[in-house]
Amino acid sequence: MTDGFEIPPSLSVKGNETIAKEILSRIWGKKGVFTCTVGNTLTSTIPGVSDAGDTPELTLFTGPADAELLVLGKTVCMKGIPINPGGIPTPGTLTIAALNLSGMPRHIINAGCKVVPNIPFYDVGGTYGESITTGKAVKDPELLFERGKVLGELFAKDNNYLIVSESIAGGTTTAMATMMAMGVMRENLVSSSSPKNPKELKTKLVNSALETAGIKIGDCAKDPLRAVGCVGDPMIAVNAGMIVGAAKHVPVIVGGGTQMAAVIAVAVAMDESVVGNIFQGTTRWLVNDPNSDIEKIMAGIHKDVPIVYVNMDYSKSPYEGLQAYEWGYIKEGVGCGGSSVAAIIASAGKLTCEDILDEVHRLYRQILGIE
Amino acid sequence: MTDGFEIPPSLSVKGNETIAKEILSRIWGKKGVFTCTVGNTLTSTIPGVSDAGDTPELTLFTGPADAELLVLGKTVCMKGIPINPGGIPTPGTLTIAALNLSGMPRHIINAGCKVVPNIPFYDVGGTYGESITTGKAVKDPELLFERGKVLGELFAKDNNYLIVSESIAGGTTTAMATMMAMGVMRENLVSSSSPKNPKELKTKLVNSALETAGIKIGDCAKDPLRAVGCVGDPMIAVNAGMIVGAAKHVPVIVGGGTQMAAVIAVAVAMDESVVGNIFQGTTRWLVNDPNSDIEKIMAGIHKDVPIVYVNMDYSKSPYEGLQAYEWGYIKEGVGCGGSSVAAIIASAGKLTCEDILDEVHRLYRQILGIE
Repeated sequence: MTDGFEIPPSLSVKGNETIAKEILSRIWGKKGVFTCTVGNTLTSTIPGVSDAGDTPELTLFTGPADAELLVLGKTVCMKGIPINPGGIPTPGTLTIAALNLSGMPRHIINAGCKVVPNIPFYDVGGTYGESITTGKAVKDPELLFERGKVLGELFAKDNNYLIVSESIAGGTTTAMATMMAMGVMRENLVSSSSPKNPKELKTKLVNSALETAGIKIGDCAKDPLRAVGCVGDPMIAVNAGMIVGAAKHVPVIVGGGTQMAAVIAVAVAMDESVVGNIFQGTTRWLVNDPNSDIEKIMAGIHKDVPIVYVNMDYSKSPYEGLQAYEWGYIKEGVGCGGSSVAAIIASAGKLTCEDILDEVHRLYRQILGIE
Repeated sequence: MTDGFEIPPSLSVKGNETIAKEILSRIWGKKGVFTCTVGNTLTSTIPGVSDAGDTPELTLFTGPADAELLVLGKTVCMKGIPINPGGIPTPGTLTIAALNLSGMPRHIINAGCKVVPNIPFYDVGGTYGESITTGKAVKDPELLFERGKVLGELFAKDNNYLIVSESIAGGTTTAMATMMAMGVMRENLVSSSSPKNPKELKTKLVNSALETAGIKIGDCAKDPLRAVGCVGDPMIAVNAGMIVGAAKHVPVIVGGGTQMAAVIAVAVAMDESVVGNIFQGTTRWLVNDPNSDIEKIMAGIHKDVPIVYVNMDYSKSPYEGLQAYEWGYIKEGVGCGGSSVAAIIASAGKLTCEDILDEVHRLYRQILGIE
């Protein structure tokens, strides 16, 4: 079935290449629907945890502002666009470039926000997550999973495939805690939006959260929603549900890095039948990150969920804010990898990383008002 | 352009047939996206105003329950399906039949509900409407209109056309008040879900609402959102925004009866450029209703917004609950007319009213558990 199907140089695969090619060949040249699930977890306001915002409090604006940017092309809840310290722009700039070039429809899902985005969004009955140190991080994860499932089925009804993604600051810490509770990860392998990944702080927080919740590593292997409820975030529950709801009918591209690995872990544990119809869609930056190990994380979750990543390279960009991606900043988020992979799929491989970079530059100048 | 285009016997047109044919020919054989905007107005809890619910208080469950039915195929917020006294089922049964047959995607928009539907829905920042007798019926109609506009643009991005519709009990009264405030209607021409249209009560309420708000007939001709804010309901503001946002890009089928006429009135007054890219999609029952006059209402709004209606006929149905539609009950709601018209369009006229009736019967037996 995949004989003769060749992956173009803009994309690469890690993990089970046969499954990756099989799924790709089914949706090659077809357009999908892009979704981004945003939320807040108070975990991001613990000083030092998240760099996705100029101050710990401002990290709560990052997801909602990204959502506004995707829908309106500008932010309303904050001035300017979400940036990491040092002026590095949100990966949402890449996402918008990919969506513009592919003409894919986009929908925002609010998994639970303290800062409510000023746009129409899909509501799933969620509230923002508490800090994982409470051991009670997410209210009613079953409801969020169930609503996500209904939404996944809804989007699968009339689309060739679905892209799910996230923007929630502090999310690598909640992802790590969730995967430790499930036992699919037993050491800190998760990424960070900063090249100085605050590994020790995260490990300390996660251990303390698990202890408070009375969970030992692997305790929640068969009860992933307990893991999410105790030490996860609302985005994980909703997106896991969306995967399970949609993947019964159409392929799902799980767009994102280590945060979305946790989502895959929960989805696979809830319904293993999704395997074979999903892959992770991410970026070269994330896969090559020396401070995290997505391949090892994914291998711990399931051997048959491959990684397809886009070979975007900002090293020759004239803008320092974009070059920073090559120095280990950002790497993923707002579905930038998944939407880029999808844009290339939709074009049947005709669209290249260079085309996408041109559009990123155009947007970058437009958003930052540079001539 | 429309030479040779023939309207099949399943559909009929009132008003400007040239425009109707021109729009139909552009979308003939193409699939659209269906939306239903639900909400509550406390106007429906005034005894005698609405028959959409067994008691005045239960009318608040009708819109939300219809939304659940469209998405889940069953209701959660109440037992059984929304019915009018006498066991006549919600027009949502016809809507679901049309959506099933056409495979159209469906999205629910919550314009403002007191009874929140237990499903994922689009949130537009709305709250439920107060009774029009307060003269302050809708909080921040400008925001709702604006969010609706963004949503209309979003849906227009990747769809050939958009269907907007409503389920909000008490909505013909708020529609009448809004149209009187705008001066596009100067006498009570609106419909009712009961054959005993409580015209006197509605007229009394509307007059009292307008007086409380300090509005004389026609005062809001150039300020339609003031009309909605004082004496309308949240659905009107959101759907008018959706029309304005979408009709710039793709045709919009405004699915519904006199309630949606008020929506058209607001949309046209906000942005007359929508004319030529919209028509009202409704039912034979509504057009032939002896107790209301949709043709006269629409003529008062704009001469170039035609009515396309589906010739559904339940007179030979073996079920009394459905036959009741022929006796003047229900007539419209939940976009049943618009979705049926759209299903026929999507099939390029191959689908007939008989096909739709067969599916309604199948659903009716399934929902009511009849063998």
